[in-house]
Formats: sequence, C-alpha cells, structure tokens
Amino acid sequence: MGKGITSREEDYSQWYNDLVIKADLAEYAAVRGCMVIKPYGYAIWERMQAVLDKKFKDTGHSNAYFPLFIPKSFFSKEASHVEGFATECAVVTHYRLKNDGNGNIIVDEDAKLEEELIVRPTSETIIWNTYRGWIESYRDLPILVNQWANVVRWEMRTRLFLRTTEFLWQEGHTAHATQEEAIEETEKMLHVYGDFVEKYLGVPVIRGRKTENERFAGAIDTYCIEALMQDGKALQAGTSHFLGQNFAKAFDVKFTSKEGKLEHVWATSWGVSTRLMGALVMAHSDDQGLVLPPMLAPIQVVVVPIFKTAEEKQAIDNFIDALSGELKSKNISVKYDDRDTQRPGFKFAEWELKGVPLRLAIGARDMQNGTAELARRDTQTKETVEQAGLADRIEGLLTEIQENIFKKALDYRDSHITEVNSYDEFKEVLETKAGFISCHWDGTVETEKLVKEETKATIRCVPLDAKEEAGICIFTGKPSTKRVLFAKAY
Amino acid sequence: MGKGITSREEDYSQWYNDLVIKADLAEYAAVRGCMVIKPYGYAIWERMQAVLDKKFKDTGHSNAYFPLFIPKSFFSKEASHVEGFATECAVVTHYRLKNDGNGNIIVDEDAKLEEELIVRPTSETIIWNTYRGWIESYRDLPILVNQWANVVRWEMRTRLFLRTTEFLWQEGHTAHATQEEAIEETEKMLHVYGDFVEKYLGVPVIRGRKTENERFAGAIDTYCIEALMQDGKALQAGTSHFLGQNFAKAFDVKFTSKEGKLEHVWATSWGVSTRLMGALVMAHSDDQGLVLPPMLAPIQVVVVPIFKTAEEKQAIDNFIDALSGELKSKNISVKYDDRDTQRPGFKFAEWELKGVPLRLAIGARDMQNGTAELARRDTQTKETVEQAGLADRIEGLLTEIQENIFKKALDYRDSHITEVNSYDEFKEVLETKAGFISCHWDGTVETEKLVKEETKATIRCVPLDAKEEAGICIFTGKPSTKRVLFAKAY
Repeated sequence: MGKGITSREEDYSQWYNDLVIKADLAEYAAVRGCMVIKPYGYAIWERMQAVLDKKFKDTGHSNAYFPLFIPKSFFSKEASHVEGFATECAVVTHYRLKNDGNGNIIVDEDAKLEEELIVRPTSETIIWNTYRGWIESYRDLPILVNQWANVVRWEMRTRLFLRTTEFLWQEGHTAHATQEEAIEETEKMLHVYGDFVEKYLGVPVIRGRKTENERFAGAIDTYCIEALMQDGKALQAGTSHFLGQNFAKAFDVKFTSKEGKLEHVWATSWGVSTRLMGALVMAHSDDQGLVLPPMLAPIQVVVVPIFKTAEEKQAIDNFIDALSGELKSKNISVKYDDRDTQRPGFKFAEWELKGVPLRLAIGARDMQNGTAELARRDTQTKETVEQAGLADRIEGLLTEIQENIFKKALDYRDSHITEVNSYDEFKEVLETKAGFISCHWDGTVETEKLVKEETKATIRCVPLDAKEEAGICIFTGKPSTKRVLFAKAY
Repeated sequence: MGKGITSREEDYSQWYNDLVIKADLAEYAAVRGCMVIKPYGYAIWERMQAVLDKKFKDTGHSNAYFPLFIPKSFFSKEASHVEGFATECAVVTHYRLKNDGNGNIIVDEDAKLEEELIVRPTSETIIWNTYRGWIESYRDLPILVNQWANVVRWEMRTRLFLRTTEFLWQEGHTAHATQEEAIEETEKMLHVYGDFVEKYLGVPVIRGRKTENERFAGAIDTYCIEALMQDGKALQAGTSHFLGQNFAKAFDVKFTSKEGKLEHVWATSWGVSTRLMGALVMAHSDDQGLVLPPMLAPIQVVVVPIFKTAEEKQAIDNFIDALSGELKSKNISVKYDDRDTQRPGFKFAEWELKGVPLRLAIGARDMQNGTAELARRDTQTKETVEQAGLADRIEGLLTEIQENIFKKALDYRDSHITEVNSYDEFKEVLETKAGFISCHWDGTVETEKLVKEETKATIRCVPLDAKEEAGICIFTGKPSTKRVLFAKAY
C-alpha cells in the first residue's frame, strides 16, 4: 500500500477520499463543499463528455446554453419542484461590493436585487420559461436540447465527486407533441446512459424506475441506472425523467396540434454528472490505486525505460519512438516517462496509483533480446513479450482489460443481488453482505419510509425486467406482484 | 431585406441585434442581462471551442475546473484586481429559501453565509489560492492549465454576445519559474488567438499591447488582438496577460529554484469568450443575414430539391444521397432540406439568413441535364455546375469562400487605418470614417483619458510591429517615438 492510501478493508470511505486526492483527480476547494477537478481527473471527465456528447448528437440532440441564474419566483410555479430544489440553494441578493473607506470590501446595500436570483440547481424552470417562446405549432416539435453546465445544490455533507455543492453535469430537456413520444425519449436516453456506463466505465448497471418516494421533484416517472460499489452500497449513476405536462402547465407552454387543437407540451429531462467519476473510482480501484478502464484512461500505456548509459537510452528511445507512432495510429494514447529525476520503481508506483492500464518496461537487456515487460494494472500480472508485433499485442490487451474490468464488476454485482422473503432475512443480508436485496414490497410510500428509517435501505428501483410474480411484502405481508431492489446507497 | 432585419445603414446596432435573434443564435433570457445561446449559435461556439481546445493541448496545456464561487476576502488580496473586478459582481449571501407559511418562497434569514461568496468574474484569485498547494519546487513548474467556464460581471448596459452579465469563456492560468518563460507564454497564447481568429473566423486582427489605462486589473502587461467591425468600431477579441509575481505574492505561492532559492512564481492568464460570436457576426454579415466562414459554419452546404412529382423527388434523393456520402468523406457538413411544409423560396431565404456558405438547388430539369445550381452566400452569386465532379467543386469553393471572406474583411480593415498628425485631423477622421487612427501620443494616462472624454476614442493598442518613428503627440505636442492605434470600441 504505502503511498498513504488507507486500505478498503480498514475504511472504505477514507480509501476513496485518499485515492481521489493522491491520484490527482480532485481536491476540496477553499469554498465549503466545492471541489477543484485537477487536470488528470478532468481528462477522464472530458473523455466521458466526448463519448456522451456524440451519443446525444447521434440521437438527434443539439447543445444550447441557458442562464446560470433563475428568478426566485420561477421555483414557485411547479409545486413539487420547489419542495425538492428551491430549499437548499445559493441565493444571489446583491450585485455589487464596495470599499467601506477603511480598506475593507463589503457588500453594497444600495445594490440589492429587486428579486433574488437562485444559482441553478437544475434548469427545468428557466428552460421551460424559454421554450414558451420557441413553440407555437407541432412543426416546432420535438425540441431535443442538451446543456453541459455547472449546477449548485447546497449540500450539508459533501464528498469529492459523489456529492459536492457545485458539480458539472449535462441536462437534456426535450419537448414533444405526444405523451408516447416523450416516454419513448425518456426510455431511449436511459439506455444511452446504461450502454455508456457499461461499455466505457465498465460498470454494470440495473435499469429501472424509481418509486414515488425517490422520484425527481416534478416528474411523473423517473427512470434510473443503479450501480453497485465494492462496499456493497448502490450508486445512482444517471436518471431520465418523464415530466408529463407539469412544466408546460407551470410555464404555459402550448402548441397547436396537427388537428388544430391547442395542447400542453410533453416534457422529459435527463442527466448524468461528475458523480460518474466517483462511480468509476469506487467500482474498480484497489488498495494500490486507481484501476482505469482503457476506454476512459487519459494514458493507456506508459513506457518506462531502464538504462545506465546514454547509448542504452538512445537505443530504447529509438524503439519507443517507432512503437509510439504505431500506437498513435491505432488511437492508443501512450506516455513515454523518461524523466531523469525519478527512478523506475518510483515511476512504477506512480502510474500504478494513477491507474494506467498497461505499463511497458524496457531495459538494455530487453533491447538485446528483442523483448519487453508488459504489466497489467487490472490483474497485477507481468509478462515478457516479443518486441515484434508489440503494438498489436498492446491493442489486444487493452480490449481484454476493458472486458475483464467489466466482467469482474459484473461478477461482484451479480453475486450481490440477494433474494429474500422475510424482513429478518432482509436485515441480516443488509448487515452481513449488503448489495442489492430483491424482495416483495406492498407498493406504499409508508412502508418504504419505515424500512428506510429502520435500516437506512431504500428502494433503488423497480427493475425494467422485473418479472410478474405473486408474493407478499416482507414488511407488511400485503400482496405484491413484483420484486423491487433495496440497498443502502450513496 | 424583408425578414424583419433593420439594414446596417439605417441602424447598425439594431441590425446586429435583429440578426442575432432572427438567425437563431441567441436571445435575451428572463434574467436581466443574461442570454440564452440557441442551438444554432451554440453549434458555432462549439466549433470555436473544438479548434481552440486542440490548439491549447498542442501547446502543452491541460483542462481543469475550479469553483464558481470565490470567498469575498480573496478579492482584497490583490489591490488593483479588487478595483477592477470585485465591484460589479453577483454576491451570494444565503444558502436556503423557505416557505413563509402563506405559500410564498422567501429567503431564509437563518441561512446567512458567514462570508459572502462572489460568483467568479475571472478566476485568478481562486486559482492562485489553489496553486499554492500544487507548487513546491521548480519540478512542479510550469503549470499549464486552462478552464472552460461561465463567468458573471454585473454589466449595466448589455448586448447579446458582446457584453452580457453571464458569458462563456476559457481562461488559461499558467505558472512559471522565470519571468522570461512567463512572457514567452503570454506572447505565444496571443499568437494562438490571433492565428485562430484570422484563419477560422476570417477576421483580421492587430496584435498589440494595451496602455496602462486599458490593462487587465492585476497585470503587468496586457497583450490583445483587436478587430474592426463594419461600422468602423474596434472590438477587442482576446487578451493575454503577463501578471508578473502579483498573484503569487498576494497568495503566497513560492517555489524552490534549481539553485535552492525560495522565489515567487511568475504568472500569465489569457482568455477569449462568447464575445467572439459577436465579432463573427459583425465582421462579415450583411442586410440579408449572416455570412458564416465555412470553417465555423455548422452547415456548410444546404441542398434544396425542386420537384413536382414523387418520381422527380426520388431521382433527386438518390443523387443527393450519393453526393452527401462523398461530401461527408471530405468532412463537409451537408444538410438536405427536403421539408414538404415549405417552398423552395422560403428555404432559400432561411438559409441565406442563417449564413450557410453554399446552397445547392437541384430540380427535375437539372437531373435531365446532369447539372445543378450552386449559390455562394458571400458573393451572392449563382452558377450552373456539372453534377460530375460536384463534390470536388464544392470543396474547392468552400476554401475559396473562406479566403474571400477574410480578404474582404482585411481590405476593409486596411483601408480603415488612417495615419493622422494633428488632433483636428484625428477628430475629423473619427467622425467621417472611423476605423483605427494611427497617431503619436505622449505616453501618459492623462492624455489618453482627456482624448477619451472628448471623443470616446481609446487607445486600442500599441501594435507589436509598430516602427520606431520620431513624432509629436497630436494632443499635447510632446515628443513620441511610436504611433498607437486609437478607435471607438465595443
């Protein structure tokens, strides 16, 4: 372990925090609950953005940008939305500071806003207020818009990436002529998220729907993808909401249908955030550091030369120069770490900490033998390989690593879905094994709340593929037709 | 004109505003001084971002993200910076709203922040406060970081893109071991901006340095690129600042040099913003609408089919399908506008308004003759072309259009730099012709301020290529060794 990282066994939460900081992903800022995303962490986020942005565009969406500030009154227009969002948020009340004459900078009380502004915690209100001007007829629909932005929610307890006062995200906001089309969009985007997280992050997810209790404030139906972390706690990795006509009604957004009728517009919204960075770290990493899936790793292969003389170094340089060219033509990112200020052992530990999927070490002896040493980050295994065909070998291994990382997480996840049929069993599994608990529930908000109070477990979702099955609620004994998934969650 | 756009001659300012709104680039938001950037406008901004981001990375920079909020006290740490920035800005004072019991949402006075937070108008303070933790030794330098972000400056008079309360930008913040290296970086980034604006926006710029009066608050030296709009007013399109050790001293950022000495770090910062969108529109567009340079146009070629029967349409569809494939393989973006809800004339006007560089119209007769009609947006000229080799022809024309747009702007700019040698001449040129006025100035802040008071013209820059030349200040008659450029500016 060294490197000052707490082990997972000792304290999972501290391990996570240590890792995020030591691997240079992020750190806490001088402002309470806010973070600085450092270049290495941001490079991973940029890769996520690039893939998602392409998927959004391939499904017909365009990006746009709406204001950071929302007039306070907008929040009162959608009754359930205000309860969910307007309470814990940053409020701008003044627009000027001044020097008090003694060299102190103070708020200028003469520059008080007539109406306070809220720093957006999510943008449904300001966007639907804008859409009113964009929509007249069915010809103006659908509107398929996405925004990459920062948002602020005044969280009392914060954790890097998982829950910060300010975070980065994307929020899609679409407007449709029919309910069917809006529901189709909601489901489509859920699958875009699910496929992305599984394929790129290598994190298996369960696609499902939230219960009333956990639904987005203002939504008719909230779909989600739920992942499982190595400590057996669930993490909501993305949500897609069918908003019905709630926001159209609140902001008076109507359109003339093909049949000439004036109707309210149907809405969806969907988002993923820098929280995905937390999921990525917690799902795969180990006590030695990050384990990054090749498809999101800023550096996929690091090369460490081992040499004594300048001639030895020159021979390695030449070989690596050619190899790098080959790798780059395969779109594989490679870093040649030939710093002369650090020894190979230090470099090995550093790149291990930073989760680089493959490490190539090459020394003078290797150059004579036409070999090199390849080390996999995911399995911690090393092998001596031929220099001939090395680029192909690396390409193949990166694919293998991506698959292996996903498979490992999938095996863990699948072995941590436990079916229970009684509340005692429920509580025992929750204490001993955690993970998802599949059980019958009577469908009431009250029961869910009681279970949450007693165990801290919540219903993560009703899986989309849940089978119809006669059963009885583990808590009340009332009849149920479907199993739901409970878990403790981040 | 039609389309409801005021002509440039009638009212240039209104023409600009009409154009931005009618061409679907942006609109004012419900929040005073803020804008909504609409999908078509945002698509242009995204193209700018992509090119710039690559240029930043090619010159060794990485992206990162720093908090939106800055503690009020940070602004007091750099004396000149606070004067420039802390006065007109959004102040967050509370972190919670509540229901007053009568259904009204009000600010919760119990949730008052101990220290007010400023919504960043620029990030030097929070970033240098962070860099303190990142820098110990010369080995940690340079730090070459860029951030894409929103910033807020409480402007009293706003104009879409040119001056809005919230705007989008990138801000580079670099840290160096030596003064020379920091100055080199400052100049390098100025040229990155200059080359980008000339090559991609097709807008010629003058590279120069600001006078003390116009310098960035906290900078030792501010470099800028200045462009000229069609009304003869200048527009500052980007700035790059050499900050010396000002912020390192204010935030106590020191490093141990190779020689073992503890020294303050040297800094630069540089930025361009969505203001570039304003420059793009004002530099090239005409009374019929936008004129977009092909390298930034979201749609480079629009195809409008003209047909009466389904068979005619089918034949055109087949041809366009093949052509689109060819164009896409050349990375040319093409839109086939085969909407059946609008007539060709309507479509022509719409795409003209939106500035699409090339319009291809193709009818049944063309299909028989193996021809098509190509219309250029920049020159408003049309020609009948052969279908054979059409993709190559289009590719060549796009290059030609890009060059022509730049050349036209360059001719205009060059014919609007007037050398004057007296204050009477100065005032006359300013009234009759406007543009840049090249003249001698005595180098004092007082003279610049007096000229500004009397004429509203400011010194846009001292051009980097200004020749040494003996002369006398047009205002005070004092000796001067270089001509500077005055202009009225946005």
